[in-house]
Amino acid sequence: MSSVSDLVNHQVRLAARPVGLPGPEAWEHTTEPVADPADGQFIVRISHISLDPAMRGWMNAGRSYVPPVEIGAVMRAFAAGEVIVSAHPGFAVGDHVTGTFGAQEYAVSDGAGVQKVDPSAVPMPTYLALLGMTGMTAYFGLFDVGALKEGETVVVSAAAGAVGSVVGQLAKIKGCRVVGIAGGPEKCAWLVEELGFDVAVDYRSDDVKKALRAAAPDGVDVYFDNVGGEILDIALTRLRHGARVPICGAISTYNATGPQPGPSNYMSLLVNRARTEGFLVFDYVDRFPEAAAEMAGWLREGKLQSREDVVPGTVADFPDTLLRLFRGENTGKLVLELTG
Amino acid sequence: MSSVSDLVNHQVRLAARPVGLPGPEAWEHTTEPVADPADGQFIVRISHISLDPAMRGWMNAGRSYVPPVEIGAVMRAFAAGEVIVSAHPGFAVGDHVTGTFGAQEYAVSDGAGVQKVDPSAVPMPTYLALLGMTGMTAYFGLFDVGALKEGETVVVSAAAGAVGSVVGQLAKIKGCRVVGIAGGPEKCAWLVEELGFDVAVDYRSDDVKKALRAAAPDGVDVYFDNVGGEILDIALTRLRHGARVPICGAISTYNATGPQPGPSNYMSLLVNRARTEGFLVFDYVDRFPEAAAEMAGWLREGKLQSREDVVPGTVADFPDTLLRLFRGENTGKLVLELTG
Repeated sequence: MSSVSDLVNHQVRLAARPVGLPGPEAWEHTTEPVADPADGQFIVRISHISLDPAMRGWMNAGRSYVPPVEIGAVMRAFAAGEVIVSAHPGFAVGDHVTGTFGAQEYAVSDGAGVQKVDPSAVPMPTYLALLGMTGMTAYFGLFDVGALKEGETVVVSAAAGAVGSVVGQLAKIKGCRVVGIAGGPEKCAWLVEELGFDVAVDYRSDDVKKALRAAAPDGVDVYFDNVGGEILDIALTRLRHGARVPICGAISTYNATGPQPGPSNYMSLLVNRARTEGFLVFDYVDRFPEAAAEMAGWLREGKLQSREDVVPGTVADFPDTLLRLFRGENTGKLVLELTG
Repeated sequence: MSSVSDLVNHQVRLAARPVGLPGPEAWEHTTEPVADPADGQFIVRISHISLDPAMRGWMNAGRSYVPPVEIGAVMRAFAAGEVIVSAHPGFAVGDHVTGTFGAQEYAVSDGAGVQKVDPSAVPMPTYLALLGMTGMTAYFGLFDVGALKEGETVVVSAAAGAVGSVVGQLAKIKGCRVVGIAGGPEKCAWLVEELGFDVAVDYRSDDVKKALRAAAPDGVDVYFDNVGGEILDIALTRLRHGARVPICGAISTYNATGPQPGPSNYMSLLVNRARTEGFLVFDYVDRFPEAAAEMAGWLREGKLQSREDVVPGTVADFPDTLLRLFRGENTGKLVLELTG
């Protein structure tokens, strides 16, 4: 191959902290030459960039579970790609890898947090989805935080999204009754017909409160919350005794420009001896291999499907692709594939 | 003694479901003769009636952890008294007992849920306080739901109330840093000077957010919530990683006449991998003897104080005494002593 110094790295950087939905003014498109790796480093050519609701939080200033993306920095993003140059003893040219490589075409890495993956076993996007952070989030959120037991009733919001669609399938594997809440008839049909959910509630057209009561007349043991807002508040009214509510996200509020109301029905926790619990998948990193092996097994056996919503484009399409998440346009895991 | 049929039982019954604070229109004062006990029953002359924030919830219609008090029924209340007539093999005249005897002077009981107590060991009101539901609520809420560990930082609201004052003392026994939130300088002084709390925050005059930051600069491991509302919302901003928030009550909202806002900072649970969990002390009934024995030991050793705010009066004073709770006038456990 030619020298990396011939390569130009197109990048998307954070230009300003957005108020509300991140429009074009939030971003800066930059290019820089790709440098030779220093000793102990390697260069990855990125093929797939993961789009995640959490990105919106990373764009805000202030204390959180990770530092915010600095103004002027390349936007933080999980990504997958191939090693094209290496001065690192553990990574060779041609290795396929995933890591927090950022919204750019080429990343320099010292290997920290980088996983080698095998594209002959499953497609690369699946390593960002079912076998990546997405799948780990579903797995540990449902089984550990949610403490799921066989035969329980599970409700998941953003059910046709990356995490939600895995949560529901995992609960079905455990013999649970599964109700998904999603937006639109196509997503709802997919949940029931393809993924085997027992019921899908369309929050855009159904009366969610009534629909949940009908779908889970005896109440809900686990409500896996990806959306926050009004749907969380409704779900709280349907909890059974001892219910668990893993708080995975609150996509309905991430682009709000003012303080958001909290769940006014939280006293249902007291009446029903129930709990809400936040979690971060990074806390389970020691157990990722075990979980990924189990999930890969279910994938091979056909018990689990990984659906990726792969958008072809260039790094410059990253900002618009991100907005698809917040408009609820994706089904399954949203991934930007760098094709050009 | 004379026949029980000579005795008149003064009672307070629920006349109407209150909107907001329960005023006189919520109550009906009735009298009826005391009947001879049927086989397997006994009659208790009530000496002390417990006043509890939960009573406000029992007055509302609708599904909850216990059925509502029916209109026309004697108001549900924990109480203590003495057996004066018995046709029950397990209870003898002169036995001192506690139970859900109601807001009245005499109760007929079949012994269900009744505890025998020894007034020569500790005063009767203490059996409704530290050694009753109040103490059990503090004990299991802090140690089980709160999963308290030695040396942690604990914040408790309504800290000068019945449950809160026990929670803080229990946390001190476990070597924790304890911050109490209470209303007014006298209560705050009592918490620090008498009960050994490290800091007391006066929510009526302090900026609670600033005061909490100063009192617990490294954050809060357990926030024991008795009040809900704004103080819960502030406390959520101060959680440490892995924090626990037992939801014991929400007295700030019990008399609200419209929907109450929920805790808008609940997403702190996610960022901090924290949990909120509701609980009901009745779920721990099998372990009451063990907990009561431990608490009684600490009481004897002087490690724990039981403070009862004993109001002398008649059953007719029950409605006004209850209002003291919601005005925050009590320090320690509010008890109506029937002196008339």
